[in-house]
Amino acid sequence: MRSEAEHTARMAKKKVVQDKIVAAKTIEKGLLMVHTGPGKGKTTAALGMAVRMMGHGRKVGIVQFVKGAMTTGEKVIFDAFPDLVEFKPMGEGFTWDTQDRARDIAVAREGWDEVRRMIADPSYAMVIADEINIVLRYDYLPLDEVLAGFAARPAMTHVVATGRNAPEALIAAADLVTEMGQVKHPFRGGVKAQAGVEF
Amino acid sequence: MRSEAEHTARMAKKKVVQDKIVAAKTIEKGLLMVHTGPGKGKTTAALGMAVRMMGHGRKVGIVQFVKGAMTTGEKVIFDAFPDLVEFKPMGEGFTWDTQDRARDIAVAREGWDEVRRMIADPSYAMVIADEINIVLRYDYLPLDEVLAGFAARPAMTHVVATGRNAPEALIAAADLVTEMGQVKHPFRGGVKAQAGVEF
Repeated sequence: MRSEAEHTARMAKKKVVQDKIVAAKTIEKGLLMVHTGPGKGKTTAALGMAVRMMGHGRKVGIVQFVKGAMTTGEKVIFDAFPDLVEFKPMGEGFTWDTQDRARDIAVAREGWDEVRRMIADPSYAMVIADEINIVLRYDYLPLDEVLAGFAARPAMTHVVATGRNAPEALIAAADLVTEMGQVKHPFRGGVKAQAGVEF
Repeated sequence: MRSEAEHTARMAKKKVVQDKIVAAKTIEKGLLMVHTGPGKGKTTAALGMAVRMMGHGRKVGIVQFVKGAMTTGEKVIFDAFPDLVEFKPMGEGFTWDTQDRARDIAVAREGWDEVRRMIADPSYAMVIADEINIVLRYDYLPLDEVLAGFAARPAMTHVVATGRNAPEALIAAADLVTEMGQVKHPFRGGVKAQAGVEF
């Protein structure tokens, strides 16, 4: 435990530094944000940002590239605000474990067309390409095309790309990258997926 | 790009392994979850989980220990579901940069009393102690008491503790720990906090 005087001095100094940092920040722009890494919270944090944006009365578009990324739980709440969020689940269409790779590529393309449509429409304040990193990982979409599409967003449109194994070039292009690290996971201890936590 | 045959074989093998893993998981229990690390998304992912749980028609209690952790944006959406979420902002009470450490400890105590009340009430499916790690870091609450309070939760109650610098003992006690790592942050490039992203 620190002394009162030390504590006070430290907090005062911190506030001066913080005020200076905040004053130096003047740029407003649409950010390209990436949530990657093996840990939980990549999609959940993106959907939390969607809620935040919706609360400001601004529309969010969500394209879900992998089945189940948007859960029943979230969908019920989002469905209560049809003017503020458009949700496109594409993941149901993926076959993954069949020989039909061409079909999976077509599904990825369809999802990407939705993302591009939303990005091109400035009425969307934020566009979430959920689990698009997985699709890129499987070479279902050309990385260059996706990077160009993200770069072509209107000046004030925020884009969020999620999924583990974000490509290096996407990380390089992004304004903000968070790596969700898995320190501990209950699945390892035999705990099953539960309502309100995983779905 | 992999060959079709390689792709198919790999996906089939992956599915067998995944099915085996899922079948082995039979335990349902209230989890102690920790979101820590210097990156963004700790509170946002917790609030995303709250949305998920609310969508299942189950009540969430949120105690916010630090001012601004729950933003105006999220509050608007949460306020639309008064039966499904109780939100207690305590952070306004903290002085931080004054000599009034005793008062800050009292505010922390008040917040902790709310967390304990919610945990003791099984009508809450999930209790979020948002930024409690900060409060623990400043020694505003005794760690042992907080750990005991979390451990005393009903069998099916989920608890989420957020904030950077989670104490080692809390990480050891948790079922699930995600470390949000900051790979890149736009504040470093002069970009200011924006509606729908930071607040």
